[in-house]
Amino acid sequence: MRYHRIPDETVRRLPVYLRGALHLSGRGIESTSSRELADLVGVEPSQIRKDFSYFGDFGIRGVGYNLNSLIRHVNRILRLNTGRKAALVGVGNLGSALLAFPGFRLYGLEITVAFDIDRRKIGRRKSGVLVEDVAVLSDLTLRGIYLGIVAVPEAASQEIIDTLAQAGVKGILNFSPRYVAVPRGVKVITIDIAMDLACLPYYVPTG
Amino acid sequence: MRYHRIPDETVRRLPVYLRGALHLSGRGIESTSSRELADLVGVEPSQIRKDFSYFGDFGIRGVGYNLNSLIRHVNRILRLNTGRKAALVGVGNLGSALLAFPGFRLYGLEITVAFDIDRRKIGRRKSGVLVEDVAVLSDLTLRGIYLGIVAVPEAASQEIIDTLAQAGVKGILNFSPRYVAVPRGVKVITIDIAMDLACLPYYVPTG
Repeated sequence: MRYHRIPDETVRRLPVYLRGALHLSGRGIESTSSRELADLVGVEPSQIRKDFSYFGDFGIRGVGYNLNSLIRHVNRILRLNTGRKAALVGVGNLGSALLAFPGFRLYGLEITVAFDIDRRKIGRRKSGVLVEDVAVLSDLTLRGIYLGIVAVPEAASQEIIDTLAQAGVKGILNFSPRYVAVPRGVKVITIDIAMDLACLPYYVPTG
Repeated sequence: MRYHRIPDETVRRLPVYLRGALHLSGRGIESTSSRELADLVGVEPSQIRKDFSYFGDFGIRGVGYNLNSLIRHVNRILRLNTGRKAALVGVGNLGSALLAFPGFRLYGLEITVAFDIDRRKIGRRKSGVLVEDVAVLSDLTLRGIYLGIVAVPEAASQEIIDTLAQAGVKGILNFSPRYVAVPRGVKVITIDIAMDLACLPYYVPTG
């Protein structure tokens, strides 16, 4: 089954719903309503119903959503149902935090290799993951890796993104706030933590 | 001037537009179109126009948006025009990365104090910011701080959020993916890095 023309923002909310569904399911709950899910994840019920409607609404009127079915659907849509491997480039403070981060496993994601330029880090393990020399980063698809995470200084981000693209990576999570040229056929999601913080004063009239 | 009923997602896109406008302005450009801005920031032109329309559309038909005016407007809407101070709690790998992060300054934001429980860190400076004992965290409004950043282990996040709320903090950026009870009158934005990564496989059919 293929899904077309789904807005990026809907795609970005699906893991939010998935996390909520996993949370409820983990508490032994079997089904939920768009309202209950909305209260949990902080998205309007109408938005949730609209997002799900792109995939053929799989709720049942008056009953709501069966959680196991919802989890299975969203996993399949996001292609998370098979374990996914990712390569991390940049084992500084942020990279180290990402390697130690327990949250990826929830979505069947795993960082299986890390790269750095620092000789003191190369050959060592960090949170159990071997750090390799970025200079020898080559075809990652041979290792079943199609996802990359870039946690290098801004000045190096473009070069690393190009290197990952050449290595066959198709999806990149980029923590450098610099604008980068996106290689053809590669999806780059840029995370700018400062932008998230910049939203907050809007809600804080004082100070 | 007050703005009402603006969707959270519009508020979250405003710093995206601001960053794009600052980037263009920094290159000596004086005005832009919703299409040019769209190409730069990766949001549809129609979405940009709709978002700006909440504040009274300040573009000029056929001319586009004056960048200085756009920057001034968005800064005022987000209340970023006055410098904003933030307190960071948790000086581990992630917290250290945040303290070293240059991006906050772009939005007039500054982390002015950090807190931790580790005696080896308390009393020292990290990226120029003094680390204080979280046990003595009290009224932060006396220091002009209304924003907080939580980068502690999941198990401690609820307690720290409650502590910050008691200290007068009104806006919190929370890096713990755990669901937390949000104190009354406080806005909490939760960043779950795993959720951002979980979007990527959708765009990556192979592997």
